[in-house]
Amino acid sequence: MATYTKEHEVAYYECDVNQTMTLPSLVSIAIKVSEEQSSLLQRDKTYIRNLGVTWVIVSYHITLQRLPYVGEKVTFSTEAKEYNKYFCYRYFWVHDKTGNELVKIEAVFALMGIEDRKLSRVSEEIIAPYESQKISKIKRYPRIGKIDHGKKQSYRVRFYDIDSNLHVNNAVYFNWVFDVLGFEFLTHYQPKELTIRFDKEVAYGQTVDSHYEILEEQSAVQSLHEIKIADTTNCEAMITWEKRS
Amino acid sequence: MATYTKEHEVAYYECDVNQTMTLPSLVSIAIKVSEEQSSLLQRDKTYIRNLGVTWVIVSYHITLQRLPYVGEKVTFSTEAKEYNKYFCYRYFWVHDKTGNELVKIEAVFALMGIEDRKLSRVSEEIIAPYESQKISKIKRYPRIGKIDHGKKQSYRVRFYDIDSNLHVNNAVYFNWVFDVLGFEFLTHYQPKELTIRFDKEVAYGQTVDSHYEILEEQSAVQSLHEIKIADTTNCEAMITWEKRS
Repeated sequence: MATYTKEHEVAYYECDVNQTMTLPSLVSIAIKVSEEQSSLLQRDKTYIRNLGVTWVIVSYHITLQRLPYVGEKVTFSTEAKEYNKYFCYRYFWVHDKTGNELVKIEAVFALMGIEDRKLSRVSEEIIAPYESQKISKIKRYPRIGKIDHGKKQSYRVRFYDIDSNLHVNNAVYFNWVFDVLGFEFLTHYQPKELTIRFDKEVAYGQTVDSHYEILEEQSAVQSLHEIKIADTTNCEAMITWEKRS
Repeated sequence: MATYTKEHEVAYYECDVNQTMTLPSLVSIAIKVSEEQSSLLQRDKTYIRNLGVTWVIVSYHITLQRLPYVGEKVTFSTEAKEYNKYFCYRYFWVHDKTGNELVKIEAVFALMGIEDRKLSRVSEEIIAPYESQKISKIKRYPRIGKIDHGKKQSYRVRFYDIDSNLHVNNAVYFNWVFDVLGFEFLTHYQPKELTIRFDKEVAYGQTVDSHYEILEEQSAVQSLHEIKIADTTNCEAMITWEKRS
């Protein structure tokens, strides 16, 4: 299978007050690394668009040993591991310089018709160079719980939030999901496991509500998230947290 | 004089829908390059903090031939050119691979006491390794006009907007200043000259109003900006624009 690896030195502007990388930055760099691999394999965006389709991210399942810190030299690796009729399973790993795994991202991608905005089958032509394994089953990730007694905060889509397709970039949802938890929480807890699913695109000009609920059970802290526009859910997430030492 | 240069390949997440670099990204990378130079000259943040002071950015005066585009390989160069009793004048240049100047940034820095938050004199100990020229006069940049008939939009400070000192990072002001102009304007005009002055820090938990006014006179388009909290002005900016071709 084709693995692609890129070194990365963590910049101060990719980090928050904890001096560790933000999730939006982490995910943005991961996607850049996967785009570089696709270009090397002659499957860049233009090639894909010429087939009338475009990649969309369905979900991420992220497990974190720890977040890379400012100035740290890490590697981002990626591999398009498996695919079935409609979904491609791409993995990412962030390792420190001695080879310890810091972060693992399991990403589910799908192809969407540019015109009809409908799911499109994964064709051999697109997938072959990645040497992915064809599987028949659909992989399942942890079920994201529903918010029972939530709070919310509004976020207006900003010009810099949108992609060239005029929809909000997936990395921005992490900003909405994390920001709503506030300074106290985000400086006392660090994420250990995160599942996020993108259900419906958000466009420029819209305002979303970032709903959340924090569940504490003995030492385990979990947060549930829903990004909604009125009654429509655009994105759901669930994060398991650990107290910072 | 000590010039420091770094290559940079423009990432998709540093660009907006125009496929060119955003000002927040441009300025963030420039600052990173200057921090690298300071580290090389043994004048990193820790060294400066141990003297009881910290660098603050007073203003930027930016002239743009064009913004770097996604995937472009450019160089960022910087030089701490001049200083006087209280201010240091650091220049940045972005060049394309054939050596054409794309962007020039003239930045004014000052040292502020960590305890008393007051301006501190520029000491020989701090400035010597940069081989800057000592000048007696205070450099003047274009006067930023006052808004006469403005509109405004509110921006709540987000967790990822703040620095390790708990104040809003200077790059975020560019987001507030640009975003308020909206999609139509930002996809039809490109910035040619920008002057921004940081008057008063904004802290986490605050909400600012981004005021603006667009002045059109024959073919010249200029925008005036004020970032305010109630009657206090935290930041002012003036941008000259050119119609995109």
